[in-house]
Amino acid sequence: MIENFEFHNPTRIIFGKGTLPQIGPAIKARGCQRVLLLAGSGSIQKNGVYEAVCQGLKEAGVQWVELWGVRPNPVLSKVREAIELARNNQVEAILAVGGGSVLDSAKVVAAGFYLEDVWEVFERRAAIERALPLFTVLTLSATGSEMNCAAVLTNETGRKKWAVVHPGLFPVASVIDPSVQMSLPWTQTVNGGMDALAHIMEYYFLGRTEEVTIALDEALMRTVIRVVDLLQKDPTDYDSRANLAWSATLALNGISGVALKGGDWATHQIEHGLSACYPEVAHGMGLGILFPAWIQYLQSCNRPQFQRWAREVWNGDSVEAGIANMKATLTRWGAPTSLRQLGITKPELKTIAANACMVGLLGQLKPLALADVESILELAW
Amino acid sequence: MIENFEFHNPTRIIFGKGTLPQIGPAIKARGCQRVLLLAGSGSIQKNGVYEAVCQGLKEAGVQWVELWGVRPNPVLSKVREAIELARNNQVEAILAVGGGSVLDSAKVVAAGFYLEDVWEVFERRAAIERALPLFTVLTLSATGSEMNCAAVLTNETGRKKWAVVHPGLFPVASVIDPSVQMSLPWTQTVNGGMDALAHIMEYYFLGRTEEVTIALDEALMRTVIRVVDLLQKDPTDYDSRANLAWSATLALNGISGVALKGGDWATHQIEHGLSACYPEVAHGMGLGILFPAWIQYLQSCNRPQFQRWAREVWNGDSVEAGIANMKATLTRWGAPTSLRQLGITKPELKTIAANACMVGLLGQLKPLALADVESILELAW
Repeated sequence: MIENFEFHNPTRIIFGKGTLPQIGPAIKARGCQRVLLLAGSGSIQKNGVYEAVCQGLKEAGVQWVELWGVRPNPVLSKVREAIELARNNQVEAILAVGGGSVLDSAKVVAAGFYLEDVWEVFERRAAIERALPLFTVLTLSATGSEMNCAAVLTNETGRKKWAVVHPGLFPVASVIDPSVQMSLPWTQTVNGGMDALAHIMEYYFLGRTEEVTIALDEALMRTVIRVVDLLQKDPTDYDSRANLAWSATLALNGISGVALKGGDWATHQIEHGLSACYPEVAHGMGLGILFPAWIQYLQSCNRPQFQRWAREVWNGDSVEAGIANMKATLTRWGAPTSLRQLGITKPELKTIAANACMVGLLGQLKPLALADVESILELAW
Repeated sequence: MIENFEFHNPTRIIFGKGTLPQIGPAIKARGCQRVLLLAGSGSIQKNGVYEAVCQGLKEAGVQWVELWGVRPNPVLSKVREAIELARNNQVEAILAVGGGSVLDSAKVVAAGFYLEDVWEVFERRAAIERALPLFTVLTLSATGSEMNCAAVLTNETGRKKWAVVHPGLFPVASVIDPSVQMSLPWTQTVNGGMDALAHIMEYYFLGRTEEVTIALDEALMRTVIRVVDLLQKDPTDYDSRANLAWSATLALNGISGVALKGGDWATHQIEHGLSACYPEVAHGMGLGILFPAWIQYLQSCNRPQFQRWAREVWNGDSVEAGIANMKATLTRWGAPTSLRQLGITKPELKTIAANACMVGLLGQLKPLALADVESILELAW
């Protein structure tokens, strides 16, 4: 029987070309006058995003303080610095301008503002009770963070890349202007597309009779593949940028997982182990390598659904054909399909597995123990 | 170029078997202690819905007054009666328990509570500024009213069946228990499915390069057709009831129309003309008759999209084949496919057309004048 579910996603999305300045009025509409603007390493100063956002803030009469330097695979120390700054300046909201790393960091800042030690929440020793209102301007579609209430952060000290989920972390409003993504390096476009595919797959393989969600997920996966192919031909194709951006948002805003029991997430946890040990590995790239291995290892647990995936998404008449077509697509996009290609040696797999399994058994379709994870990593190697 | 859009849908959905009493805690969570319970003609007293809702309200300490008797194609006079009752009892929220007619009426009551004459809003001579918080318990999936901010009402005096849309009309929370729909008469299941299909089609045919929305819409349409077929074999198939219910919600909660310019809605307006003149014609049934005619008449305006619809939804190699397969499906479901079958005579078509065109030109793909609408009605005859 299809499981009972709740669906509630209050985030307001402002989407399209030239929409960046609208973040100002959106913040003002919520009654916030002073925000912390959190950003990455400066690319938004080169592509005009920063300027357009500042213009919107000024016109709406919103004041701000800035903190730069959030990096991919964002870390706790930077978040602590931001919380300190937010408190010292008595800001009323957080504004994230960047990709998933900046957005996730901003979520943790918004919650951490009211907590003694926000990492305690990740350790499940404390709970979020409230958070500052959060606003985002998205510059890289991938994580779906702009329309969900989850955040992933790395505690460098313990090499722990963990997630936190709380309804208070939904952004109040998010602005997505796909045209600012036209100048992205190709690998980032591919990694973003792969991240979106992975989010859908984390839910999809738990599907049995949830026909609406299953069919929507297939439509989304096919769309992602189709538009990434189009972007390989023309990275400045606005409509494909827009379709990829909206697909990535829907891939993890709840819609793709309705009634699918919260999703599996083992592959994500293995990837978090991977990039906790090798922070230079991009999240989407790691997922592209790990997912085919996870599928190969788990396919007997819900075979009809894996076969359906192969047929409906990859035009393959068997799970093996589906996996092969997925790998061929990644190769066509210039993405690696094995851990070996990343320069990781076989003995290192045990370290990654141990890191991933720090939190216990992984996943839901079949809860994976350390030996399972090692086997999957070997398949991915 | 894909149009800019905003997406914001704050309604909380509580979905599944046995969820009816949860409406009580949902109302309480919003801080409301006294509500007007609006209902239809009494079927909810026979199928246990009323009892389960009352139990939930009692356990949450929510008090209520009741008003019964909202009918299909709901009318203004009943809404006025409800507003009066809501004011006299100083309720803090409206709770609709029923199908689209009850939900739409409740929306107008929620807004009308604060207005001198709520019909002025339909005439575009007044604006909604606020509305009472609205809660719904859905007993018939069709209109999507449980997760959108639109309402359709008939002013009997002028035979005007018109719509109103305002963000304040989003329900705060809606409970959908698909198991209560297992005992519905077959025609209501078909009409509900057809209504959902129609909502998607109102957006779909404006599609050009909006691949995400187009692909999702096709997935939804295929799902509706598939699960109605399954329900024809077994009306008590819970999973199909659940899939139909969630499809119908998604068909008009904004997702199916993202970037599709607000939709066309000419067919709906023609149907409103039809059921304003013949209130015994169910909305979904009317749409099933009118849509193939509208498609036949409009197909040259965006032919690739009509061809795609025929191919992807109806497995037809031409628009004509798509229309034929759609009609064959309706016939298989026992639904009429011509106005003649409803007992309407040819001279009456002019009356229907005149009623529909009272508001001006209809639709967006090609704005339709009176002569166009008459032609479409003749095709549907």
